Amino acid sequence: MTSGTTPSATPSRAKVSRRGLIGGGAAAAGVAGAFAAGRWATPEEHAVTAVHASSYPFCGEQQAGIVTPVQDRLHFVALDVTTDDRDELIDLLRRWTDAAARMTRGASAGPVGPVEGSALLPPDDTGEAIGLSASGLTITFGFGPGVFLDADGNDRFGLADRRPAALEPLPHFAADALDPRRTGGDLCIQACADDPQVAVHAIRNLVRIGFGTTAVRWSQLGFGRTSTTSNAQTTPRNLFGFKDGTHNVKLEETADLADHVWVGAGDDAAADWLVGGSYLVTRRINMTIEVWDRQPLGDQELFVGRTKDSGAPLTGGGEFTKPDFAQQVGDQPVIPVDAHVRVVHPDQHGGIRMLRRGYNFVDGSNDIGGLEAGLFFIGYVRDPRTHFIPIQRAMAAQDALMEYLKFTGQALFAVPPGVREGEYVGQALFAS
Amino acid sequence: MTSGTTPSATPSRAKVSRRGLIGGGAAAAGVAGAFAAGRWATPEEHAVTAVHASSYPFCGEQQAGIVTPVQDRLHFVALDVTTDDRDELIDLLRRWTDAAARMTRGASAGPVGPVEGSALLPPDDTGEAIGLSASGLTITFGFGPGVFLDADGNDRFGLADRRPAALEPLPHFAADALDPRRTGGDLCIQACADDPQVAVHAIRNLVRIGFGTTAVRWSQLGFGRTSTTSNAQTTPRNLFGFKDGTHNVKLEETADLADHVWVGAGDDAAADWLVGGSYLVTRRINMTIEVWDRQPLGDQELFVGRTKDSGAPLTGGGEFTKPDFAQQVGDQPVIPVDAHVRVVHPDQHGGIRMLRRGYNFVDGSNDIGGLEAGLFFIGYVRDPRTHFIPIQRAMAAQDALMEYLKFTGQALFAVPPGVREGEYVGQALFAS
Repeated sequence: MTSGTTPSATPSRAKVSRRGLIGGGAAAAGVAGAFAAGRWATPEEHAVTAVHASSYPFCGEQQAGIVTPVQDRLHFVALDVTTDDRDELIDLLRRWTDAAARMTRGASAGPVGPVEGSALLPPDDTGEAIGLSASGLTITFGFGPGVFLDADGNDRFGLADRRPAALEPLPHFAADALDPRRTGGDLCIQACADDPQVAVHAIRNLVRIGFGTTAVRWSQLGFGRTSTTSNAQTTPRNLFGFKDGTHNVKLEETADLADHVWVGAGDDAAADWLVGGSYLVTRRINMTIEVWDRQPLGDQELFVGRTKDSGAPLTGGGEFTKPDFAQQVGDQPVIPVDAHVRVVHPDQHGGIRMLRRGYNFVDGSNDIGGLEAGLFFIGYVRDPRTHFIPIQRAMAAQDALMEYLKFTGQALFAVPPGVREGEYVGQALFAS
Repeated sequence: MTSGTTPSATPSRAKVSRRGLIGGGAAAAGVAGAFAAGRWATPEEHAVTAVHASSYPFCGEQQAGIVTPVQDRLHFVALDVTTDDRDELIDLLRRWTDAAARMTRGASAGPVGPVEGSALLPPDDTGEAIGLSASGLTITFGFGPGVFLDADGNDRFGLADRRPAALEPLPHFAADALDPRRTGGDLCIQACADDPQVAVHAIRNLVRIGFGTTAVRWSQLGFGRTSTTSNAQTTPRNLFGFKDGTHNVKLEETADLADHVWVGAGDDAAADWLVGGSYLVTRRINMTIEVWDRQPLGDQELFVGRTKDSGAPLTGGGEFTKPDFAQQVGDQPVIPVDAHVRVVHPDQHGGIRMLRRGYNFVDGSNDIGGLEAGLFFIGYVRDPRTHFIPIQRAMAAQDALMEYLKFTGQALFAVPPGVREGEYVGQALFAS
């Protein structure tokens, strides 16, 4: 069973939720008692309005937030580990696991909520999500190269012999303009939810738990998903105005997930702890929106290889019709040789696929008054050497869209498999 | 009648919407015909799924987006006018009015949608909102001081004698650390919607229409409202984790709106064009989140003067109970003299109130790995000299919260009254 694929209004979630804190009156003593006992109010202690929202279990065979139907909003953070102490790192992962399990079911980040017995201590939870539902929150953790060997080549945590061979820093791609302040990281946390305040709350509280052990390297918010991971979802649009992610790997395609997304048992003998996990690639892709907007519709469609309206390939049919790359008009292909859909199509790359769950972003205005905007690419792949780097190389070399893109950040993480009850995330990595 | 206060699924909206572009099949010819004719499909041309969303009319006595029940998301932009030609400015306002009226009812920004007869021209609309509902979009325009007298004191548009006396650049407040790149502006556009992609689409297309006449000075996205403007809404929380905007002026309080928000007929003889409008103050308020999160709950509540859980004043009752500033414990007031609720309370300022519709923001991480986050304050007042500056001065001088705040941007705009059918926004300002 793959976890995190089926939204479920869990009984505890639907009846308790963060709303357990709201209200008062007759139930106030019960609520106070719950907090004094280090937990949120139970239904018996506090009758609350049922929340119309879904939640995803944190535990499962795979981490939630990969094949989970893509939520609308993202807060992603990359952190550096500031300790050299293996036990401190393990302790952090334990505390993160506990907090993530709590928050994904709609509870506070820690056992002591914002309202508790003693006012003399800071609450475990920062409080801004009180009254909000779980909002489909998923929290997904990954390990960057620096956990295995730091920048000076030191094996801080005794993990060097377990480093996955594929977890090399990504190569330089043509036209990259990476900002070191938006690149790399020892650890990552991806929080997705249908309410941005819930995603922000999750990252903020996890970062807070890591204070003294980790430091934020960079973070990124996203406001509109740019792919689907379930056949139940409709295809969204990116900031070029085109449908994006039409041929994404979906949770219903279990065979392709096994072939292209999940790390297999024989993939890497040194990294057996990663079996059932995946690799997460991020690329911050700025779009030169204002220039794009001045291109004629026909040119935009030739760059992409699809129509703007329906998303159908220029060779006809509907959104999900396979492009006919051989079709010609005169002696020219209908879908140009540099059209995005052709350059990155699985047919050009031995049939490989990836699972994308990126987001649109707008981070205000840039220095010349344009939108600081684009697509924060997130791809999950079985092996970045076969499933990402070749496609990115082809795109950098040939893709007509490159004229309207600028790559300003990137990172690669190994995403361990799901967490079983009582374990912490990544536990197999630290097993002796 | 005040416009923009009542959500209504207008017939054209509910049946057509941007979804009119999606799908195809039997209706495809009709849709294509509509685009060839430079408009969106009608219900007869394209049967579509009804959209569960509300829309607000653009025209009305006041501009929508002030008393309109606060939507969940914001995109705000401040622009400088780059022309000295009065007719060009008027033409821009006409085109903005037309586009805003279209987009707020869920249509494209211009008569030629992303799919049109000729592929040789850029579409009038950038396309990323195709398939999304109107999402409660409101678009609100304002005029900054530079429209009346530019930085060099020139009366570029012949409007100097119509400048409202209250439209002076705001004074320096203690502890301000304003970034010039986040301050001021000749014009502003506030787009609020329940879907951020819809708000971003609106600003992007309006900025695009202004290309060559205006340049973006700064912009700000917000993801969680921090106030309510209707008794039908529950009070949200800011990033300190506290309820915010409990005692905001609500659309139901028409007498207080007339007294404190709308410019009155006798307020300013030179600026009769502004009667029925308002002044819009923005302040970008960074919160030092990480320091705040280390404060004990009891201290946080003393700084605010309210409980974190229910939002009730520390002197008891519920969220909407009036604070008892005289109540003491021993010889000390229960609500300290520097508690935020006391410092800014109408009782301290002659009973004046303001209408706030600010938003939480998180713009990634700052230079030291903290959250670049806080509250983007938006306040609508009848006169900033009486209704904003004294309160901000008191806050800067006395408020315990100031230790956790940094003011990084600000602006002031005169917001003209609503637009009548056939007029353009601000038309009375240019009447001879």
